[in-house]
Amino acid sequence: MTANRTEAYEIINADGTGPAVILCEHASNHIPADYDGLGLEPSARDSHAAWDPGAEDLARRLSEALDAPMIAGRISRLIYDCNRPPEAPSAMPERTETIAVPGNVGLDEAARAARVARVYAPFTRATSDLIARRGSADTPFALITVHSFTPRWMEQPRAVEIGILHDTDARLADAMLAQEAPGRQVERNAPYGPADGVTHSLCLHGIANNLPNVMLEIRNDLIATPAQQDRIAAELLGLLRPALARLKLGEAHDA
Amino acid sequence: MTANRTEAYEIINADGTGPAVILCEHASNHIPADYDGLGLEPSARDSHAAWDPGAEDLARRLSEALDAPMIAGRISRLIYDCNRPPEAPSAMPERTETIAVPGNVGLDEAARAARVARVYAPFTRATSDLIARRGSADTPFALITVHSFTPRWMEQPRAVEIGILHDTDARLADAMLAQEAPGRQVERNAPYGPADGVTHSLCLHGIANNLPNVMLEIRNDLIATPAQQDRIAAELLGLLRPALARLKLGEAHDA
Repeated sequence: MTANRTEAYEIINADGTGPAVILCEHASNHIPADYDGLGLEPSARDSHAAWDPGAEDLARRLSEALDAPMIAGRISRLIYDCNRPPEAPSAMPERTETIAVPGNVGLDEAARAARVARVYAPFTRATSDLIARRGSADTPFALITVHSFTPRWMEQPRAVEIGILHDTDARLADAMLAQEAPGRQVERNAPYGPADGVTHSLCLHGIANNLPNVMLEIRNDLIATPAQQDRIAAELLGLLRPALARLKLGEAHDA
Repeated sequence: MTANRTEAYEIINADGTGPAVILCEHASNHIPADYDGLGLEPSARDSHAAWDPGAEDLARRLSEALDAPMIAGRISRLIYDCNRPPEAPSAMPERTETIAVPGNVGLDEAARAARVARVYAPFTRATSDLIARRGSADTPFALITVHSFTPRWMEQPRAVEIGILHDTDARLADAMLAQEAPGRQVERNAPYGPADGVTHSLCLHGIANNLPNVMLEIRNDLIATPAQQDRIAAELLGLLRPALARLKLGEAHDA
């Protein structure tokens, strides 16, 4: 039995029995003090490079509406990106789209292993335990990860507003994409997809457990305020609830 | 017994027995659809005029750390400002610092009464009930309200970072201000104070119940990200815990 809150993660609604378990790997930009801010300017530590703005607030709304247990990372992706395996260079990136990360340059094996032990291992173990505990309720459920992306990338605007991402198991993504989303630019595997290495959590926790699974990527200018988060949560629930029902998940929880 | 969640408010950690009850009147910029956005541009509906950015996230951290029940408003202050009495013009402002609010111009008595009934009355009743329920635990507690303010006002920068506001009962404010806050600009009744009409909740729920009470105003550029919110929460707890203890509140909860 893992704790509900540690330095590396926080579990919300741990005893929820709804039709999903929700992950929010990039919830926080917190950099523990002993990393000296990774040598970054404050503006970089507060930017989307360090976390997914709006994702946790959105995920909490989905967690509450679906009575779904949720786990949120509590350490910046720049220390360790919990949606990446330890061997991926992007797990501890030396640079991102726009910034260099001095504190990540030339990390030796011991330093990398220490970050895995401090961030990735506890987050991953707690996620596995949460899924096992939810599994013991003996009603089927899906795995949903919640992320946000920037309106511009390399100075180019992105038209996509909601990305529905999947790896080899497209059951839940297909069922969501079968719904109408009037006035909303919803796309499959956009603004990036499995070839970009972003489906680690889906593979590790979803596909490995044969759970229907999907990664939701929301353009962060659409989830910057509580009212926007309410609205996008309602829109996503409009796609998710019929999709979960189609997969015979959660009809009893469709409150 | 009131519900824990309605259109007007949400109660978090309803059964907490820590040494405080926390209010966050301006948590959301949500404007129900039938108000047609009050005729505002989206940029105005998302701005600090409509809510206190960062305040709810900060208040939730204090609620968790203190095991304090908390109530958050779920409707924009531009519809009804729950920290104002119904008779105050600023309860449904026709304009703010920088924006005119077309949907609030020339409201007749029926329209004003309808907003009181829909927003202020349920928020206030739920707060009273929450305080009564917490009071039944028979251990003393304080009332804390959490707000945020903008770094600039009428184009002038504000140096104050944390405002400790009070009305006629200064017990908790005095005890907080007696602590050191190195490197942090903490001021009494700044950037505004009781003469500006901002102590309605303190008077209505704090002073009327003889609860030690304080209003915390945080400059919103300091609580824009989770890491910043963690830091300011820790700093505030460094002031609050000794202050609560000095008032013989919550020593058993000083975890």
